[in-house]
Amino acid sequence: MKYAYFFSKSLTEGSAKMKDLLGGKGANLAEMSSLGIRVPPGFTITAEACAHFSQHGAYPQGMWEEVLANLKRLEETEGKRLGDAERPLLVSVRSGAAVSMPGMMDTVLNLGLNDETVKAVAKGTDERFAYDSYRRFMQMFGDVVLGIDHALFEHALDEAKRKRGVKDDTALEAADLKGVVEAYKRIYEKERKQFPQDPLAQLKAAIDAVFRSWGNDRAIAYRQIHKITGLKGTAVNVQAMVFGNMGDDSGTGVAFTRNPSTGERRLYGEVLFNAQGEDVVAGIRTPLDIEDLRTHDAKAHKEFEDIAKRLEEHYKDMQDIEFTIERGRLYLLQTRSGKRTAAAAVRIAVEMKAEGLIDEKTAILRVRPEMLDQLLHKQLDPKAKYTAIAKGLPASPGAAAGAIVFTAADAELAGAQGRQVILVRAETSPEDVRGMAAAQGILTARGGMTSHAAVVARGMGKCCVVGAESLRIDEARKTITVGETTLKEGDRITLNGSTGEVIVGEVARVDPQISGEFATLMSWADRHRTLKVRTNAETPADTRKALELGAEGIGLARTEHMFFGEDRILAMREFIVAHDRAGREAALSKIEPMQQQDFEEIFALMAGKPVNIRLLDPPLHEFLPKTDEDMAQVARSLHVPEAQLRERVEHLHEMNPMLGHRGCRLAITYPELAVSQVRAIMNAAARVRRGGVEVLPEIMVPLVGDVSELSQLRALIVEAADAAVRAGGIPVAYQVGTMIEVPRAALTAAQVAHEAQFFSFGTNDLTQMTYGISRDDMGKFIPAYIEKGMLKDDPFQVLDQDGVGRLIRMCVEEGRRANPKLKVGICGEHGGEPSSVKFCHRAGFDYVSCSPFRVPIAKLAAAQAALEGDA
Amino acid sequence: MKYAYFFSKSLTEGSAKMKDLLGGKGANLAEMSSLGIRVPPGFTITAEACAHFSQHGAYPQGMWEEVLANLKRLEETEGKRLGDAERPLLVSVRSGAAVSMPGMMDTVLNLGLNDETVKAVAKGTDERFAYDSYRRFMQMFGDVVLGIDHALFEHALDEAKRKRGVKDDTALEAADLKGVVEAYKRIYEKERKQFPQDPLAQLKAAIDAVFRSWGNDRAIAYRQIHKITGLKGTAVNVQAMVFGNMGDDSGTGVAFTRNPSTGERRLYGEVLFNAQGEDVVAGIRTPLDIEDLRTHDAKAHKEFEDIAKRLEEHYKDMQDIEFTIERGRLYLLQTRSGKRTAAAAVRIAVEMKAEGLIDEKTAILRVRPEMLDQLLHKQLDPKAKYTAIAKGLPASPGAAAGAIVFTAADAELAGAQGRQVILVRAETSPEDVRGMAAAQGILTARGGMTSHAAVVARGMGKCCVVGAESLRIDEARKTITVGETTLKEGDRITLNGSTGEVIVGEVARVDPQISGEFATLMSWADRHRTLKVRTNAETPADTRKALELGAEGIGLARTEHMFFGEDRILAMREFIVAHDRAGREAALSKIEPMQQQDFEEIFALMAGKPVNIRLLDPPLHEFLPKTDEDMAQVARSLHVPEAQLRERVEHLHEMNPMLGHRGCRLAITYPELAVSQVRAIMNAAARVRRGGVEVLPEIMVPLVGDVSELSQLRALIVEAADAAVRAGGIPVAYQVGTMIEVPRAALTAAQVAHEAQFFSFGTNDLTQMTYGISRDDMGKFIPAYIEKGMLKDDPFQVLDQDGVGRLIRMCVEEGRRANPKLKVGICGEHGGEPSSVKFCHRAGFDYVSCSPFRVPIAKLAAAQAALEGDA
Repeated sequence: MKYAYFFSKSLTEGSAKMKDLLGGKGANLAEMSSLGIRVPPGFTITAEACAHFSQHGAYPQGMWEEVLANLKRLEETEGKRLGDAERPLLVSVRSGAAVSMPGMMDTVLNLGLNDETVKAVAKGTDERFAYDSYRRFMQMFGDVVLGIDHALFEHALDEAKRKRGVKDDTALEAADLKGVVEAYKRIYEKERKQFPQDPLAQLKAAIDAVFRSWGNDRAIAYRQIHKITGLKGTAVNVQAMVFGNMGDDSGTGVAFTRNPSTGERRLYGEVLFNAQGEDVVAGIRTPLDIEDLRTHDAKAHKEFEDIAKRLEEHYKDMQDIEFTIERGRLYLLQTRSGKRTAAAAVRIAVEMKAEGLIDEKTAILRVRPEMLDQLLHKQLDPKAKYTAIAKGLPASPGAAAGAIVFTAADAELAGAQGRQVILVRAETSPEDVRGMAAAQGILTARGGMTSHAAVVARGMGKCCVVGAESLRIDEARKTITVGETTLKEGDRITLNGSTGEVIVGEVARVDPQISGEFATLMSWADRHRTLKVRTNAETPADTRKALELGAEGIGLARTEHMFFGEDRILAMREFIVAHDRAGREAALSKIEPMQQQDFEEIFALMAGKPVNIRLLDPPLHEFLPKTDEDMAQVARSLHVPEAQLRERVEHLHEMNPMLGHRGCRLAITYPELAVSQVRAIMNAAARVRRGGVEVLPEIMVPLVGDVSELSQLRALIVEAADAAVRAGGIPVAYQVGTMIEVPRAALTAAQVAHEAQFFSFGTNDLTQMTYGISRDDMGKFIPAYIEKGMLKDDPFQVLDQDGVGRLIRMCVEEGRRANPKLKVGICGEHGGEPSSVKFCHRAGFDYVSCSPFRVPIAKLAAAQAALEGDA
Repeated sequence: MKYAYFFSKSLTEGSAKMKDLLGGKGANLAEMSSLGIRVPPGFTITAEACAHFSQHGAYPQGMWEEVLANLKRLEETEGKRLGDAERPLLVSVRSGAAVSMPGMMDTVLNLGLNDETVKAVAKGTDERFAYDSYRRFMQMFGDVVLGIDHALFEHALDEAKRKRGVKDDTALEAADLKGVVEAYKRIYEKERKQFPQDPLAQLKAAIDAVFRSWGNDRAIAYRQIHKITGLKGTAVNVQAMVFGNMGDDSGTGVAFTRNPSTGERRLYGEVLFNAQGEDVVAGIRTPLDIEDLRTHDAKAHKEFEDIAKRLEEHYKDMQDIEFTIERGRLYLLQTRSGKRTAAAAVRIAVEMKAEGLIDEKTAILRVRPEMLDQLLHKQLDPKAKYTAIAKGLPASPGAAAGAIVFTAADAELAGAQGRQVILVRAETSPEDVRGMAAAQGILTARGGMTSHAAVVARGMGKCCVVGAESLRIDEARKTITVGETTLKEGDRITLNGSTGEVIVGEVARVDPQISGEFATLMSWADRHRTLKVRTNAETPADTRKALELGAEGIGLARTEHMFFGEDRILAMREFIVAHDRAGREAALSKIEPMQQQDFEEIFALMAGKPVNIRLLDPPLHEFLPKTDEDMAQVARSLHVPEAQLRERVEHLHEMNPMLGHRGCRLAITYPELAVSQVRAIMNAAARVRRGGVEVLPEIMVPLVGDVSELSQLRALIVEAADAAVRAGGIPVAYQVGTMIEVPRAALTAAQVAHEAQFFSFGTNDLTQMTYGISRDDMGKFIPAYIEKGMLKDDPFQVLDQDGVGRLIRMCVEEGRRANPKLKVGICGEHGGEPSSVKFCHRAGFDYVSCSPFRVPIAKLAAAQAALEGDA
């Protein structure tokens, strides 16, 4: 087995195809070397070596010998030697896994410096540069390899600046930096850590540290959040150093080949002169726009432009490029597909197709469906009047509002409790990613468009404002001060991620305008998907919105609200307190015409598209008053003694309402309820049909656990529906089926399918029962699960394919075997979650149904599932 | 296809092996005919003909022709002809399915009588007999075939008796009976029903009625209650009439070859002289003991004794025989295996083995395991002093107490609500069987030991007292009066089914004494079963009782009560209100030594048998006070402000506690709780072990839904347990495993099994979640399900093999595939229910665990499962 791959202008062993082995960075360094692009030479130690190290705590046999052989090759290529007192080779040691995990793992620069070689470097360049590099190396090595608190080093550096009376690192002189090196040595001593003077020992320790960093908490958390699985480990890139901090003709930068926020086809990035790469990513000094390179160094700019175009053509995707200019000479340090906002992703995909760079299928697969949420969710209402108290950089578009929290842990807690919060930090670090995922939006006082907060938030499709420097954030006291205004924890703010504005209070938000590229992409998705996409809607407003977003039917119209309306609840309560069936029927007869009216509106809007209507589902006690005051008032309205009402309320109390008298159990005990609803549905259908509009009602029985429930109710429904159709005088086809939300219904699908024309998976309740978790109560124990890393995904958001999904697959297979015409869909919230939609495609569903705004997401996911299935 | 099978002394086409086709009665009539036992000749129409009739509403082609051909054969055998004015043939038409369903289907006697033939019969016998037979036929035909209310006929008969001033039917003379026939004709007219004078039309109508009776409500209900499935229909027996009512040298009776109540080897039964068979079963006239036949007709008695012995030897089982003596000549009308009490079943099985009639395996299979409940459940405390207010016949032994109800419907409702009731009726009828099943005991004022109530209650193994004639039961007013005492609905009474006593109030009951035959049977069962039987117990008393009844370990020790004790609950509440882990640990340290003491007792008693201990399971709010008063008191005891306690109580409130913060979720959030329990278990184990007694603790994690829960907790448990073992200074082996009660755990068994040494199915919760039914709340809707016949069995009593069972089978199979050493058991209530135990055997379980008194039931069921598996 080969553990190290060399890359240089003249000899390159790897290629872009070897990402799994060499990591993204290593593979692309090799690729660029092969393309003849100027890259500092070096070699990549494979991810397999890391995997061996993780497992056994030691290098695989022969690896170190390969490292030494490649080092020798590198020394020969560069004409320098590691540790040489005359011409010392300095190298960087960088991690790089197959999937980019920015900032998660460790990097060591300037390796090879020691008390001897620093003098040689000083001789070859200048003393200030040499000692600055040395102290940087000591700092990084101490922090990354030996785990010394980096604050100690920063403190010593600040001390030197204070003594010298300067603010900027660059203002320190050689003598000062020598002093810093001495101070750093004292820190090592005090911390009882050894700084190895032997460069080979440095190299070995740095490689070990990178290997170990694969298993650190933040890297594990990052992989969990981003659902990165199946990787062996990280590769390690050992590469000759080039310096962006050799004076004003040197610099280092990061740039995208297109605008990652809007998708515009134009270089987008930043350069920081006289700086090393880590300075840019850290966002500590504010860099210059990449355009400034044109005036500063026209040759380098032109060269960069050409390389960017070549790389895009080569990789056929927008690139995120790291580079260094050493004394006017441009080196590429990394290229990779750039992270981007949803708007950018859509625009880039559609434009690249137009440019002929990629084909339609590739364009569809380029946009992560969940990102569309950003495009589809709210923006600030353009008509809303507000005054921003601060303005930062518009790092990730959209609008978000919520209560201020100051720690990632608080954001996580809030997320688990369903509260909406904005995470406010001076700057974010990898430890904060879980909290960022849980917050509605992120606000930082520091950092640029490529700072940690900005990059991560864009990846998450989360509204984010960074570098709002006028904010004074006191994380200890949990306050934000801007001028005279002080905000404290819990105060509500609004962020405009598209402008960078920060606003006190909640500002009205509106639905987004949808771009032409978006429509194009959706039309392509429609062409490739086989899964139909319906919506969960029961009001005319939602129905209209869903149609506008392309819904192909209603997958779930809940009828609860048709009993809750102000004009209906009293009749419903009359139903509940009635003594006999006649009394109940009298009460229902008041609601029935109103329900018919509701259904007529929906049928008219859907104009022949299928409309799946669920019979009443919630337990009756939900319709009864809770407080003493309401109780008295309702008793008066119903003309019943308060004691009687109270007794009824007590009688209906349930220990576990989720598993109680609800769903089809209501219709079994009160058949008149189902009959009245069916009559309203079918009378509405007949009426709309008589108006010349097609109708296609599907009547859905909830909470079936045993086939006998469905067969009983189907008989009842068919009888009532056929009677209504006969009375309506016009033929109306309809279907009867069931929700599958009780595990037993799935386990006995072969029986249930004989009585059903369709199955619609109610994955919310199915997940509650399969997991034995009440969503209402999980706030008490789920935070501990999150804290301990026991939950990969929230199973109420992402369908649990191992458990619930397995039940679903069994159910579909056996249901279809028993009834080959069975129509299968999903109406739980998972119907709009991309990985769950793809699961539904693979499991052979006919359709998914989701909330109106998720319709496009589901469509794109469905198209991708179809294309992925082809591959 | 052949639809009718003839039987007579000289020609018999069927045999005892053809029960499925000819029904039990028909097959045995054929068998007896072949054996040369005197049986009135006749023929049997097959159950397949009935199945065709049920499906198509018409006879299968050719059936009627076969009936006519067989009728002709019968006429030739008897030398009489149906409808003949000189020598008319009279026949009975009786139902008879493959499984006995006493009183459920219809019978017509004396068919062939009409205004003409009655005269011929009168000539051949006497006029009184002829007209009595005619009026009986008209009454039965009207009731059974035409659905005329039988009360109308009874009323007319009573009227005749009143007119004549007599009490007994037999006291009516020929003229009176002619008048009754006329009165019956008027009833037919008034009811607009046709009495066919044509005997062939009578026969066809009677056959139709019997066929139809297969599908009547009571027959369906009976089959549901007794779980009789897979039958095609009922056969119909058409047989020459013999008459037990031809005077005092005639009679009819029912007898068992052994005592069906005690098992004693001695004829047991009753004869009613000068009566037809239906008079005995109806229990209207009180019959004489079979022993009286010896004095009344020694020859018939001797003949009967010989036949009884022959039949037992032939069938190798205790027989239930119907017979008629016509003018001193003994005819057998039916033989079948007799229903018996548990005590009788055990004694008969063991004695027949000793007699060499059957082998050991057959003996084991002869006793229905659920019947043992009768033997194992309580009897009246012999030391209890009480005065019986009435004494009836001891129809079915045991003791029962409960509130009086007067209708089967009320008993059913009470059963569904978990209330204990005694069903009190003047006499029972087939419509009452559901209510009888739901009651604790049955009391009737009328009827004998072979009356409906007695037969059915014995079959159910239910305490029953019949014929307590001193009781005046007013079913309309819902009162019982005995002398000066009046009892009303809801009053509590106690029955002693072994003596026939009826007692006001509740009398103390004690555990039963177990017979030598019982011990013998159990030792045979132990020899054949492969499934181990453990018990669910956590107190020393239960543990001792279970050991006495043969438990081979503890399958579930719930630790809840170890926190509920008076001396512990305060510390537990301290735990709940504590602010931090230190506070919680301080509270637990008070309970830990007491728990250790509890475990020591159990380990010492079990002496090396495995003891499965479940970590704390219920939600914490169960430990908190509920009322305002308690709240104030507890706040004082805990030295916390009442408001704080109240806030904690409110905080812990859950919407669906069943799916909330309980089970392993407690241990994930409060690891110290699990650690403390594990320490108490292992310290106890070490201590007992040091005392020289073997220990085998199994530590069980409840409510696991995802493997991560078990792996987290297993690590915690192993750490705490190993530390305790080290500290204890003596090696103690232990196991860690999980309850499978969340559907997802079963669905992901392959993962969970890697972390578990055992799976124990908690089928109570598994059924709740798989069905989505909260047992606490099902009382609101399950009655409607029962009413509509939608529930075959209560899934909380009988394991639902289609749904829950399927999940279990998958889980066992996949769990064992992943971990071949996995031990599998059950600790839900189903572990003591015979059909569920047999399921567990088939599914490859290692053991079942049940409440102490069900241990023998489970053992017998396990042995039967093993023997049935061999077959």
